[in-house]
Amino acid sequence: MKSRRLTVLGAALAVTLIASQTGAQEGVRHLPARDIPVPDTVSPQMQEVIRRPLAPIWNEHPKSAADWKVLIARVAGQVAATLPDLRQRLGVKSEPTVIGGVKVFLVTPESVPEANRDRLLVHVHGGGYVLGPGEAGTREAILMAGYGRMRILSVDYRMPPDFPYPAALDDAMAVWKEITGTTDPKKLAIFATSTGGGMTLAMVLRAKKEELPLPAAIAPGTPWSDMTKTGDTYLTDEQLDGVLVSYDGWLGDAAKLYANGHDLKDPMLSPVYGDFEGFPPTILTSGTRDLFLSNTVRVHRKLRAAGVEAELHVFEGQSHAQYYADPYAPETKEHFRELTQFFDKHLAK
Amino acid sequence: MKSRRLTVLGAALAVTLIASQTGAQEGVRHLPARDIPVPDTVSPQMQEVIRRPLAPIWNEHPKSAADWKVLIARVAGQVAATLPDLRQRLGVKSEPTVIGGVKVFLVTPESVPEANRDRLLVHVHGGGYVLGPGEAGTREAILMAGYGRMRILSVDYRMPPDFPYPAALDDAMAVWKEITGTTDPKKLAIFATSTGGGMTLAMVLRAKKEELPLPAAIAPGTPWSDMTKTGDTYLTDEQLDGVLVSYDGWLGDAAKLYANGHDLKDPMLSPVYGDFEGFPPTILTSGTRDLFLSNTVRVHRKLRAAGVEAELHVFEGQSHAQYYADPYAPETKEHFRELTQFFDKHLAK
Repeated sequence: MKSRRLTVLGAALAVTLIASQTGAQEGVRHLPARDIPVPDTVSPQMQEVIRRPLAPIWNEHPKSAADWKVLIARVAGQVAATLPDLRQRLGVKSEPTVIGGVKVFLVTPESVPEANRDRLLVHVHGGGYVLGPGEAGTREAILMAGYGRMRILSVDYRMPPDFPYPAALDDAMAVWKEITGTTDPKKLAIFATSTGGGMTLAMVLRAKKEELPLPAAIAPGTPWSDMTKTGDTYLTDEQLDGVLVSYDGWLGDAAKLYANGHDLKDPMLSPVYGDFEGFPPTILTSGTRDLFLSNTVRVHRKLRAAGVEAELHVFEGQSHAQYYADPYAPETKEHFRELTQFFDKHLAK
Repeated sequence: MKSRRLTVLGAALAVTLIASQTGAQEGVRHLPARDIPVPDTVSPQMQEVIRRPLAPIWNEHPKSAADWKVLIARVAGQVAATLPDLRQRLGVKSEPTVIGGVKVFLVTPESVPEANRDRLLVHVHGGGYVLGPGEAGTREAILMAGYGRMRILSVDYRMPPDFPYPAALDDAMAVWKEITGTTDPKKLAIFATSTGGGMTLAMVLRAKKEELPLPAAIAPGTPWSDMTKTGDTYLTDEQLDGVLVSYDGWLGDAAKLYANGHDLKDPMLSPVYGDFEGFPPTILTSGTRDLFLSNTVRVHRKLRAAGVEAELHVFEGQSHAQYYADPYAPETKEHFRELTQFFDKHLAK
């Protein structure tokens, strides 16, 4: 009798297991291996960008704080070396200073149109909360200043391995608090890409929480809105995106390093889980190959559901943040033209 | 001497060939086989839609006009069978009539708000220019009428195999000419999905050419803007998109059947190659898994470059046109809410 009951139980268990496996498999897309060529539906310059091999650092896994610092310094050196020429060609100057106790760069075009005289954009650079210290974090700010003819304040926030969450956000908020005390927030915007896009959203969430003034507009470019590997394109664009390539490279390591034990789904780390009610007008940008396309469209849908004026722009064939990979590609100019028009529409003069 | 020159020429040729082969391979993404699960970042209803197996007809290749008619009738029968219940639940009625010598369905909600009393939306159904004859073509119109509380005129245009290009467009334009003679075009819009999205764009191109009035707004949903297999997501989303699956199924056959020898890159067939100058405000919709995501974003970028007010909405995890696959999914309601708001903003009362 006992053995009979066990057999029945065993059979029931087996059926349950098979059923749940079938359930898990149902709807799974089995994609064959494939070769995807460079698209011819983008400019020749963008084709060159897309043609680049996978980002050499994508699968690095620094094992110690010292290892991280070597990687960070190497990448920063490469970027910084390109900036003097970029500033010169775009007619932009960059001056380090300190605001609210935080290191910043004031990035300004040679000439500022009358309408932009009192406007100021706050920039919080990308790089997984680890890359882009010092001047290396100002590349996007230089492009925005040059193409948008606007003054930028680029925040050189503290980062891991020495300073994990919430140091970066604390620094950005200290700057925000300081400048909203001296400048009409209707003339302020926040913009940035990737981690900086996530920070832009987190800054607005925190400004709401702390009852600080909100910016008149924000431009989170392909924001790292979910720091867990959640969202369809984390999987569908894996290895198709040549810039980030996969969450399972340095990127996922950086998420843990920054979070330092905090819940990665805390809206201050993954702002897609935050409340977007009352957000300012927002312009979002991504690419069809972008690992963060889901991170971008999930934020767009959620902003729209909250009744926020939110624009989405998705560039053909582009991997993560390639809309400013080549400073002189037509798509780059197009991207900064969209941002400039958006800020001009929403910021007071 | 002669053989020496030939050898040198041969070597040069070999180098050139190798270089061009390398060039062709350079930048190619080699993607391994992979399994992509149903995302959990969409509503439970949308997860059910995404869980569906690949569309059973995707790889059918009818060999004759008779074969096409069998396929067309089978699909039409399946769709038409669902419509009485849909109309009842959404409080919509559908009446066949004839306008400008063309068969149409007047699809109207039980009650029309005062603001929409004089407004009219023209609908040109999707289906690769072959599917969706008669009532089967009105499904999207019923949803728009029900959720938007607007009157719709759905055009039952002629199609292959009996009537290839330009019959469909001729019919749609005959209706357009007729109604713009009796209704203020400021109160008219055109909307539709997929092939209907491509037709929507082609109708505006042709209205421009024939100096007919333009609609006050258009909503081409995931438009078939390029009828050749050109655009990055034709490749990157192949077999990931569960609805169209691949251009190399019935879809590519339908393109040739409709074109009937005409150049597929003619803007009247592939409107992405047309001139978008002067287009009315446009709202575009797609999904991150959509085979036509590139068809959609290429149109969006080109509209923006022409200075047109153009919105883009991309739904997480969705394959082609899944934003109205389940009539009652939250994403479906969200999609029609976006369209309704857009039309309300841009159409005169």
